[in-house]
This record gives sequence, C-alpha cells and structure tokens, in this order.
Amino acid sequence: MIFEKICLIGCGLIGSSLARAIKKNKLAKHLVACSRSEETIKKVLKLSIVDEASSDMKKMVINADLVVVATPLSTYEDIILKIKDCLKKNTILTDVGSVKNNIIDLFEKNIPDNISWISSHPIAGTEQSGPEAGFEDLFKNKWCILTPSKKIKKEDLEKLKKFWEKLGSKIDIMDSKKHDRILSITSHIPHLVAYNIVNTSLEIENSDKMNIVKYSAGGLRDFTRIAASNPIMWRDIFLHNQKNTTETIDKFIKNLEDLKQAIRDKNGEKLEKIFIKTKEIRKQIIEAGQDTTKPDFGRK
Amino acid sequence: MIFEKICLIGCGLIGSSLARAIKKNKLAKHLVACSRSEETIKKVLKLSIVDEASSDMKKMVINADLVVVATPLSTYEDIILKIKDCLKKNTILTDVGSVKNNIIDLFEKNIPDNISWISSHPIAGTEQSGPEAGFEDLFKNKWCILTPSKKIKKEDLEKLKKFWEKLGSKIDIMDSKKHDRILSITSHIPHLVAYNIVNTSLEIENSDKMNIVKYSAGGLRDFTRIAASNPIMWRDIFLHNQKNTTETIDKFIKNLEDLKQAIRDKNGEKLEKIFIKTKEIRKQIIEAGQDTTKPDFGRK
Repeated sequence: MIFEKICLIGCGLIGSSLARAIKKNKLAKHLVACSRSEETIKKVLKLSIVDEASSDMKKMVINADLVVVATPLSTYEDIILKIKDCLKKNTILTDVGSVKNNIIDLFEKNIPDNISWISSHPIAGTEQSGPEAGFEDLFKNKWCILTPSKKIKKEDLEKLKKFWEKLGSKIDIMDSKKHDRILSITSHIPHLVAYNIVNTSLEIENSDKMNIVKYSAGGLRDFTRIAASNPIMWRDIFLHNQKNTTETIDKFIKNLEDLKQAIRDKNGEKLEKIFIKTKEIRKQIIEAGQDTTKPDFGRK
Repeated sequence: MIFEKICLIGCGLIGSSLARAIKKNKLAKHLVACSRSEETIKKVLKLSIVDEASSDMKKMVINADLVVVATPLSTYEDIILKIKDCLKKNTILTDVGSVKNNIIDLFEKNIPDNISWISSHPIAGTEQSGPEAGFEDLFKNKWCILTPSKKIKKEDLEKLKKFWEKLGSKIDIMDSKKHDRILSITSHIPHLVAYNIVNTSLEIENSDKMNIVKYSAGGLRDFTRIAASNPIMWRDIFLHNQKNTTETIDKFIKNLEDLKQAIRDKNGEKLEKIFIKTKEIRKQIIEAGQDTTKPDFGRK
C-alpha cells in the first residue's frame, strides 16, 4: 500500500482505468473520484471501481495523499482554483494530460508551496471515452513521462514513480518543453491528420454522392478509428500545444507538396526512395516493442 | 471446380494468398504461378501452394482458362506484350491492381479480341509483402470491385464473379473512373499521408536528435504500419492515379491549413465541430461491418 487516500478528478477512459488499476494493485486504502457529471458518478458507483464518488470536488480532495487530475486541459484552471485551499499539506498532485509546458506554469502559479506538483503523462489510451471504456491493464508496458517542477522533493518524485511502476508503466523523466515537442510529432499531428483525412473524405462523399464507408478497408478505416477519439480532449490538446503543432503541420504540408509534385512529375524514383525510408522505421518500432510484426488486416 | 487451369502472374502477398485460397476452395485442377524472381519461385514451390512455378511466363500461361496478373502496375505493359500471343482463345484475363482507368485501356489496346479482359480489385491486403506473407482467408468478407471492359461476354463476368465469391469476397461492379476516384480517397491518400507523416517525423528526429520511436504508441505507430507497405506497389499506384490523387491532396492540404488557422486563432469551437463530425463516420464504418468496436491499444 503506498497511499492512504487517492482522489481521482475525472473518471473517463483514463480516470476509470486508474481506478481499476489502483484497486487491482491495492495502491490506496481509500479511493475516491469526482466528476462534474452526475451520470458519470452514477456509472462509476455502479461499476464499483471506487469507494466514494461525488461532484463535490472540494470535499473529495480533503486528506488525499495523491490527487490525480484526469480531465480535459481546458478544465484545469477551474479545478486548481477550486481545490487549492482544500489540499492536505505535502499532498502529491499530478495530472495525466497530453501537453505540459503551459500547464505546469499554471499549477506552479496557483497552488500553495507545500504541495508536490509533478505532472504525469501516461502514453496510453484507446479511441473510446467514458468510465465503461476503462480497463485495469491500460498502463501496463506503456511509457509514462514525468515532468516534475524544479522545486519538487526527490522523495515525492520517487513515490509517484513507484505508483506508475506498480500500474505496470515504464518511466521517463523529461523537461516539459521537450515533452511537448516530441508528443506533437508522435501523437498530436497523427491525430490532427487523421481528423483531417476523415473530414476531407466526408466532404468529397457529400459533394460527389459516393459511398466511401463501404470501401474504407483500404486504409481510411484505420484513420477513422483515430479520428473517433474524444473531441473535447483533442481540441484542448491542440489549443495547448499551439506552437509545436502548427510548426509541425507546416513541415508536414511542405513535404506533402513535395510528394504531390513528384506524382505530377512522374518522378517514381523520388517516391520509391521516400517509401523505402519510411518502411525502415517500422522495424525500429517493432524492435522497440511498440508493436508486433503481426499484420493488421481488419479486426473481426 | 470452375477452372481447368489457373495461371497466377506474380506471387507476392496477393498472388500467394490467391494460390492458397484457390487450393483450399478447389477452384482449379491445375494451378501454376510465374515470377521474374528465382527466389520467389523457390519459395512458392517450397510452400507447395501451386502445382508448378517458373519464370517462363509464356510457357506458364499456355492453356490457362484464367490468368491473374498480380504484380505492380508498372510491369503490366511488359507482361501483356509477352503473353498476348500465348493466351488460349476465350481465356479470362484479370488483374488485382489498385488503379483501373489507364490500365484497362492498356489491355484493351494490346490483347486479341477473343480474350475476356475483366479487371478485378480485391480490397484486401496487409502491410506485409512476399509469398510467405499470404494467407488463404485474405479475401474473406472483403469487397472485390470488378471493372469489366465494354465488349465483355456476360457469362465470363458471371464466371469471374463466382470465382471471387468462392474466395469469400463480396462483389461490386463499377466504372473504372469512379473506382479510381473512390479509391484515391479511401486508400491512396491515406497511404500517401501515412508515408508523409512518417517521413516528416524521421526528418524532425534526425534534425533534433530525439527518440521518436520510443513514444510512438500515441498515434504515430499506427501510421508506421501503413507506411511499411510495399514501396514499389505504392509508387506505381500514385503514378497511375495521378489526377485523382493530386486533386485529393489539394483538398486535404486546404482543409489542414484551415485546421492550422483554427489552432492559431484559438478557435476551439471550430476544432470541436470538425472532431465531432469525424467521430460520426466511425459509427457508420462499424455498422457497415468494416471494423469492430473493439478498442485498439497496441497489439501484443
């Protein structure tokens, strides 16, 4: 047992997976959750994944040794202002958000000095949302990046690290600026591109009255899965990682214009060279254990 | 049994899957394959998926009732010129290529009038290549689009339709222009975008000396799978569907610029609206049986 009381703020896919994993691994004597949505509270209680759930955030955080914010980034400011004076001295406060740099500043500016604020980012998730979508093994074998603020106590960082490790995660500690840059490439831009390809397809489907869904197995299907991710969460991610995402989009568009020109010029040599290069990275991903060699031919 | 002799030209992922599926469903008394590569011929014979295999295309097609071209589009012209005078009268000649319009013309111009040329496109595949990557159920429950030329005999079309149905495919008959337009959206552009996102990521990884592979589970991983598809096959697809792909890229870039501007302007409302819309199409894809609701959280 590491913590006497853990409070989860938000109980969607990530929050409810945390609840299940904390229970399974017996990491809290008392586990509580809060949500603004009465429907979510009802679901969470019915699922019996926490000991107590309420919309009264101020009440729920009282005496918690670990507080985890697992809500969309746009709600953080409200949450901090609400809970900051209710937190126990020396509480470890963390979140699970996908953007770090401006969020860390926001917390540092607002919370009392005696709170240990250490931001977390478990690189785990599915395209589904809500408390029913969670599962206890979501964090197993996944990377969790910790971006601690400068004034943090070393023992608290060790404690939070141990917490994620008990859930099965592998830990990396990283500067928030580097985090936001890397994630813009590995996660944010892939999602934006998936949203954009599906949106463009819908537009063409409507204007040309064609059935696109029917033939989506040739590639588009995989993008629709990613483009079905939580719209609010992703809206907030792009707005909070504005500089990195817009810069990466510019590079992406420049390269896509180059590919288009190669197609126009019938420059097969150039296309082939790029396609061989991108095939290479797949080997590295499989070697790094990020995926298997098992081919994907549609899940049934 | 439908055919006395079937000849497969090319024995990669699709050709070797056809071989396995033809054997399994007993659709030919005699099944032969040809390949330019001696290594492929050795592999095919070792796998025992055909009765005979050789690099001598002219010899292999003799007396075949069905000839299936399953090689990259850029090889079609050579193949036609080689086999056209060796084909049996009334042979059904088909292919499995992903682009139709200019290919159909090429065949019509070159083959004798007594040959039934009906182009096929099974919308099936994985990111893997080569004879070992094939499997007998590849075509099961997948769409196969037939784009017959005008002078075709109705009975031959029925025969080819039945052939694909026996392999488990669902059949659609479509005009080649419409085919190329729809596939540019559902398959070609998704692949080009996947290649481009992986290429852009590699470029940034090299210039910034960052480890991107390690954190690829957040979205990029899924694109690397698609971007590991056969480089030659895809080079040829883009070169043969030049007009449709470049036009769709232009629309895609225009929409991506719009999204970028919305991020720059902090226009959360616009982002949210688009992300909600794209989530909708996912429901349609699942209802159409093109994928399942099972979440994808990395394959282990």
